[in-house]
Amino acid sequence: MARIVMKFGGTSLADIRCIRNVLCHVKREVDLGHEVAIVVSAMAGTTNQLVSWTQDIADLYNFREYDVVVSSGEQVTAGLLALMLQAEGMNARSWMGWQIPIVTDSVYGCARIKSIDPSKLLKGFQHGQVAVIAGFQGMSFDGNITTLGRGGSDTSAVAIAAVIKASRCDIYTDVDGVYTTDPRIESKARRLSRVAFEEMLEMASLGAKVLQVRSVELAMVHKVRIFVRSSFDMGSASARAEGDFVGTLICDEEEIVEQQFVSGIAFAKDEAQISLRRLADKPGVAAAVFASLAEENINVDMIVQNISEHGATTDMTFTVSSSDLERAVNILERSCHKVICDDLQFESGLAKVSVIGIGMRNHAGVAATAFKALSEKGINIRAITTSEIKISILIDNAYTELAVRILHSVYHLDKE
Amino acid sequence: MARIVMKFGGTSLADIRCIRNVLCHVKREVDLGHEVAIVVSAMAGTTNQLVSWTQDIADLYNFREYDVVVSSGEQVTAGLLALMLQAEGMNARSWMGWQIPIVTDSVYGCARIKSIDPSKLLKGFQHGQVAVIAGFQGMSFDGNITTLGRGGSDTSAVAIAAVIKASRCDIYTDVDGVYTTDPRIESKARRLSRVAFEEMLEMASLGAKVLQVRSVELAMVHKVRIFVRSSFDMGSASARAEGDFVGTLICDEEEIVEQQFVSGIAFAKDEAQISLRRLADKPGVAAAVFASLAEENINVDMIVQNISEHGATTDMTFTVSSSDLERAVNILERSCHKVICDDLQFESGLAKVSVIGIGMRNHAGVAATAFKALSEKGINIRAITTSEIKISILIDNAYTELAVRILHSVYHLDKE
Repeated sequence: MARIVMKFGGTSLADIRCIRNVLCHVKREVDLGHEVAIVVSAMAGTTNQLVSWTQDIADLYNFREYDVVVSSGEQVTAGLLALMLQAEGMNARSWMGWQIPIVTDSVYGCARIKSIDPSKLLKGFQHGQVAVIAGFQGMSFDGNITTLGRGGSDTSAVAIAAVIKASRCDIYTDVDGVYTTDPRIESKARRLSRVAFEEMLEMASLGAKVLQVRSVELAMVHKVRIFVRSSFDMGSASARAEGDFVGTLICDEEEIVEQQFVSGIAFAKDEAQISLRRLADKPGVAAAVFASLAEENINVDMIVQNISEHGATTDMTFTVSSSDLERAVNILERSCHKVICDDLQFESGLAKVSVIGIGMRNHAGVAATAFKALSEKGINIRAITTSEIKISILIDNAYTELAVRILHSVYHLDKE
Repeated sequence: MARIVMKFGGTSLADIRCIRNVLCHVKREVDLGHEVAIVVSAMAGTTNQLVSWTQDIADLYNFREYDVVVSSGEQVTAGLLALMLQAEGMNARSWMGWQIPIVTDSVYGCARIKSIDPSKLLKGFQHGQVAVIAGFQGMSFDGNITTLGRGGSDTSAVAIAAVIKASRCDIYTDVDGVYTTDPRIESKARRLSRVAFEEMLEMASLGAKVLQVRSVELAMVHKVRIFVRSSFDMGSASARAEGDFVGTLICDEEEIVEQQFVSGIAFAKDEAQISLRRLADKPGVAAAVFASLAEENINVDMIVQNISEHGATTDMTFTVSSSDLERAVNILERSCHKVICDDLQFESGLAKVSVIGIGMRNHAGVAATAFKALSEKGINIRAITTSEIKISILIDNAYTELAVRILHSVYHLDKE
């Protein structure tokens, strides 16, 4: 007997037929004698509909009321799934964020969980009760409804798993795991059986949209093992009995015995670069530039700055998403470039391709392999940034698919 | 300056365009300096959709979860309307039932309000804040979501008006008031400018579906003046300034200076009658009959029992809705008729037509006028029941419209 969290996304709860399918997964775990907490998203499409209504009303809305509106979708699916489990003879009840409570800060629209009281859930387990928890939502200290940002149900699930000390957090979604790269681009992409938290963080933030980034951060901190699997895979009879399903386990790197030095190739299209030429090379300059962008909620991604040649000026390049480019340039022209730099250049239509793997810490030459492979195909590298477990390369949008396939092949990701 | 409650039904909140219309009504009252609490229903159709999902899952569902699901619609409209008011520069916030709280008993699906704490709402008024309250929902003593039954938002509105001591409770709906009878049947039907609570209770339960019956009961007990008006009537400029709108005020009979002896003609089609012949005329018999029906949730309406001729047996007739007839007959045959009565007769396809007016207390001959008018048109009267302010007559379904028009005319309801 174990205690587990099962999280179901919107496509797994899209209609009553889908919810019946979810029931089968839950019944299997309950029949195995597990204590089960379920976290649900809203039905696919519901949250978008709710968000679009708020947008029809006003561009700059009050996020307190936004949260009231958009959190309602999870209330519906939690109630419906609890009903379904009861109809099947199971002891189950729904829980809203405010009933547990899941206490968050008051940053409406993107709140962070501050604490969760597990006592009511644990008491329910003692009575054999399955908890069906509305994901995505919480309650602020002063009793207001909050939401955790898009994809926040993943974070709800991991946070619940942490406080009830679950042995596993199963994320049921419409894909059957995490792949070495996007299978729509590289048909030889392989499902990874295990991925380290750190790798998943890089993959998630780079566009492998399986899990909300924050949920992975939280899982890493609290050592919550996440198993990503498809809700449409019911498994063979023998697999069902053993709980042995197809999927990807996201876990501590110590659990990954045979580390590959590269685990996956991620990419993000439609990036834009901004270069500040002959920037004054003195303390506070970078802070001024990025603070002005952050104030307007523009996310800056790759940042490249070289050591200045004569100690006087330097060039700095960074990327933003193409849709933010015009706003970013306006802000920079208005607020700072005349004071601190000579010239401002920008270009959109770029893509970032990243090579990720915890194994590269201990392997020399991983970056060189990438550069060589790309250059052989005539792909021009605009900029490079690296971290301990990631190499990111900025190229023209048009070469994205080609670059992904080359890198996938050169690191032998198509082979077990 | 006054304190008022404004309640908007589902057709008044059907989409963003309708909600903009609601905004105009609210803005007018706020601009007049009033303290405003708004109670909203779900968007038209939403609650039906939510109910049908619960029915797709199971026939006999747990009403605790039913309430979780169906209460979500009001959460959405409360949030959206608050957003809309804020976008217009007003100070507004939404309130869920559990946030105020509106405390109810635990009869899920049809809970009754036990108490409402007005303190948070009153504090908001002090800061010029408009309260946008999700109708239909409350919270049980032990922190579960409850709902007040279909049409429950009317009851929410009246209950809020009572506890905040509002001077008026405006019910905005898709009709512009209460009529002397259904205008689809009698084109000469007139809107009543004032109706006494008692009259409205009889009209509501008889099919003039403007207000939930419980809301009128509550209003009568707490002397909450209800003004029923159309949300689509924006009034002329001068009417707007004076707050002088078309509608019907439902109030204490003392406020009705010139009482008509008849105020309206109500009707209910598709009734069925059940007659128990030669019923034992002794204590406990009627109780046994009706208890067995009540247990199965069959509503009994008109009940007629004559004084027995020889003190031994009597005949009793009562009506149920046609859709309940078969179940009712089965119950009676199974449980009691052999013991206590000789024969059980029944017939469906009947209609009940009622003449309602607080004035008839002080006027003789009201009933005689009705009987004479009907007999002149050859309409056979099956049964009659009367109360202080109502005469109900059971006739064949086919004569319903004719009877309504005759009675409407004979009591001069088409004239001011």
